[in-house]
Amino acid sequence: MIDPVALTQALLRADSVTPARGAVFDVLETALVPLGFAVDRFTVGEAPDGPVENLLAVRGDGPRHLAFAGHVDVVPPGGGWTGSPWSGEIRDGLLYGRGAVDMKGAVAAFVAAASRSDAGTLSLIITGDEEGPATYGTVALMERMASRGVVPDLCLVGEPTSTARLGDMVKIGRRGSVNIWIEVPGRQGHVAYPHLADNPIPRLIAILAEIEGVVLDEGTDWFQPSNIEVTDITVGNPAHNVIPAKASARLSIRFNDRHRGADLIEHIRAIAERHAPGVVVTGKVSGEAFLTEPGAFSTLLSDAIVGATGVTPELSTTGGTSDARFLSKLCPVVEFGLINATMHKVDEAVAVEDLRTLTDIYANVISRALD
Amino acid sequence: MIDPVALTQALLRADSVTPARGAVFDVLETALVPLGFAVDRFTVGEAPDGPVENLLAVRGDGPRHLAFAGHVDVVPPGGGWTGSPWSGEIRDGLLYGRGAVDMKGAVAAFVAAASRSDAGTLSLIITGDEEGPATYGTVALMERMASRGVVPDLCLVGEPTSTARLGDMVKIGRRGSVNIWIEVPGRQGHVAYPHLADNPIPRLIAILAEIEGVVLDEGTDWFQPSNIEVTDITVGNPAHNVIPAKASARLSIRFNDRHRGADLIEHIRAIAERHAPGVVVTGKVSGEAFLTEPGAFSTLLSDAIVGATGVTPELSTTGGTSDARFLSKLCPVVEFGLINATMHKVDEAVAVEDLRTLTDIYANVISRALD
Repeated sequence: MIDPVALTQALLRADSVTPARGAVFDVLETALVPLGFAVDRFTVGEAPDGPVENLLAVRGDGPRHLAFAGHVDVVPPGGGWTGSPWSGEIRDGLLYGRGAVDMKGAVAAFVAAASRSDAGTLSLIITGDEEGPATYGTVALMERMASRGVVPDLCLVGEPTSTARLGDMVKIGRRGSVNIWIEVPGRQGHVAYPHLADNPIPRLIAILAEIEGVVLDEGTDWFQPSNIEVTDITVGNPAHNVIPAKASARLSIRFNDRHRGADLIEHIRAIAERHAPGVVVTGKVSGEAFLTEPGAFSTLLSDAIVGATGVTPELSTTGGTSDARFLSKLCPVVEFGLINATMHKVDEAVAVEDLRTLTDIYANVISRALD
Repeated sequence: MIDPVALTQALLRADSVTPARGAVFDVLETALVPLGFAVDRFTVGEAPDGPVENLLAVRGDGPRHLAFAGHVDVVPPGGGWTGSPWSGEIRDGLLYGRGAVDMKGAVAAFVAAASRSDAGTLSLIITGDEEGPATYGTVALMERMASRGVVPDLCLVGEPTSTARLGDMVKIGRRGSVNIWIEVPGRQGHVAYPHLADNPIPRLIAILAEIEGVVLDEGTDWFQPSNIEVTDITVGNPAHNVIPAKASARLSIRFNDRHRGADLIEHIRAIAERHAPGVVVTGKVSGEAFLTEPGAFSTLLSDAIVGATGVTPELSTTGGTSDARFLSKLCPVVEFGLINATMHKVDEAVAVEDLRTLTDIYANVISRALD
C-alpha cells in the first residue's frame, strides 16, 4: 500500500511549474506501474501553448469504469516562502510546497487509494497543463482516450473544492465563461469642430448602458444567476482636444446551464449593432457551463465524505472554471479535493491528517463505485 | 514706409519654434524703433512653461488707443516641406514659411500699416508663447500693461480668421473651453466572485449616459450650442478575469457665453456624485467664452474689409480658443487676419497680394479707429 504523504512529498520535490514535463511524471509512473496500471505518457503541441506532457493510466477490465482526473503542473511559487517551495517538508502537521493542495496531494491520495483495491476499471487522466493555456492538456488526453476506446462511466476531478473543512464542498457543475470584445469605430477630429468628426464613445456608452440592464436569468436550482461584468474600456486618447477614432470594451460573462457561449456572443452583438452600425464584436468561449444533476454519483461521494469526516458536503457550482468543463462531455463529473485556502498563495500547505482522510474517502468512492 | 513682404520674410527667416526668444524679436524691434515705438522686451517664467520672451510696443499719446495683439512663435515645421520652412522664399506669388499665415504675416502687415500714419495711440502686444502652454505669454503682457498703466480702448487680434478668401470671416468672440476628469473608485476582485468586488465601470457608464443626454443650451444669436464631448475613457485592466479597481473618463466642453467654466465643472460633479459616491471630479478651464457684441468696432473693421476686398465678412464665434480670451478682459476685442488654410501644415504659405491687401485693411482700421 502506498503512503499518500510520502508520495505527495516526492511529487512536490519535482519542480513542475506549468507546463510540467519529465521528473514529476517519472514519480507518478514509478508509483503506478507496480499497482498494475498501464501507463501511457505522451507529449503534444507546439509553442506558444505547447509542448505539454500528459499521462493516461488504466487498470482492470471490470464492467464499471471510474476515472480520476487531475494535474501535476503548478503555478509559479513567487517569493516570500518560509522554506523552499520544493522541499516537501512537514512542520507542525502541515506539509508545505507549491502544489500541496492544488493538486499533487489529491493525486497522491488517489494513487494511495488505488493501492488498496483492484476492483472494476480505474483510470487516471493526468495533465501537465491545467494552470496554463490548457490547449494541449485535458483536451489532448480526451482525444487519446477516444482513439484508444477508453470510456469511463464516472469521473472524479480532484481539484481543491473544500473551503473551511475537508469535505464541506463538492462541485457538481461549473459556470461557463466567455470573454467578448466590442470595438466601435468612429472618425477622429478636433473637439472644436465635432460636426467634422464622429465620436465613437457615445455609441459605446449606449451599448454598455443597455448591457448593464440585461438580466440573463434569475439563477436555477443549482446555479446562481448568470453575470455580465464589463472588465475594461479602452479609448487610448491622450490629446485633450481630439475626438478619438475608436472606442472598445471587454466583457466577461460567467453563465449557468441556461446559456451557451456562442448564443451570448450573438446576444451582445445584436445589442451592439443596434446602437453602432459597423461595430466589431468578437468572443472567446473559455468553457461552457455544465451540471451533473445530483443523483447516484454525488450521493455516493457524499456518503463517503460523511463516513470519513462527519461533514455533509454542500453541492455547489460556484467559483471559476476547471478541466471538468471538458470532461463533462465524456460522462458524469463531480469534483472533490483538499481545502483551497492556500492554493496559489505563499506557503501553500496541506494538513497531513487531511491527506490521510482524503485517501480514505477516495478509497471508499472506488469501492462504492466499482464493487 | 515699411514693406510688409520684406518684413514677413525677415521674420520667417528667424526660426522661432515655440517658445520664441531672441532673433525674431530683434527683427521686430529693429522695425518698430524707427517708427517711434517705445519697445519693452522682457523674459519671464521658469521651466516647464517658461522662460518666454514678450514684447510691448507703444507709440503716441492721442486720446484713442488701438492695440494689435499677436505672436511670433510658431509650431514645429515637421517634415515634408518643398523648401526650407525658414527660407521665406516666394514662388508663383506665394511666400512660404512656418508662420507665414499664423501669424508673422499679420504682424508684419500691422507694422507696415503703422508706418503709414502716426495718429492716436497705437500699441503692439506680441508674445513668444501662444502656441505652447501660454502661461507666461499674453497673460504676462497684460500684467505688464496694468503695471505701466497701458490701457487700450480697442484690441485687434491678427490671428488667421479668413477661410476661403481674405476678408470672409471676422471673429467677434470665442467659445470657452474646459476639460473635466471623472474618476470612479471601486474594489478589485475576480470576475467569478463579483460579490467580493465592486466594479466601478457600471457607475461610470451611468454617469456618461446621463451626460450624453445633457443639453446645455440651444445656442444664441452669436454662438452655436455648447457641446460636451467625452474624449477618453481609461480602465487599464489587461486581465480578462479581473474586475478593475477604478475607471476614469475625460470630457471636453466648448461652451458659449451662457456658461462659465467653473459652473460646468460643478454641473458634471453633481451628475457624477448622484451615480457614484466617492467619485473624484476635477476640471481645468482653458478659457471662458467671450463676445464682443457687434457694434462700432466690428462695423469699422467690416467697412475696412469691404473697402479693400469687396468681401463682406461673416461675424463668427466658431473655432478653437485664441489669446483673445485673455485680452477680452481689457477692452472690446475682434480678430481678423490671413487665410488659415495652411496654418500648422506643411508648406504653410501666404499670397504676397494678400499681405499687401491686409496691410491696406489694417491701415484703414488704424485711421478709422484713431483719427
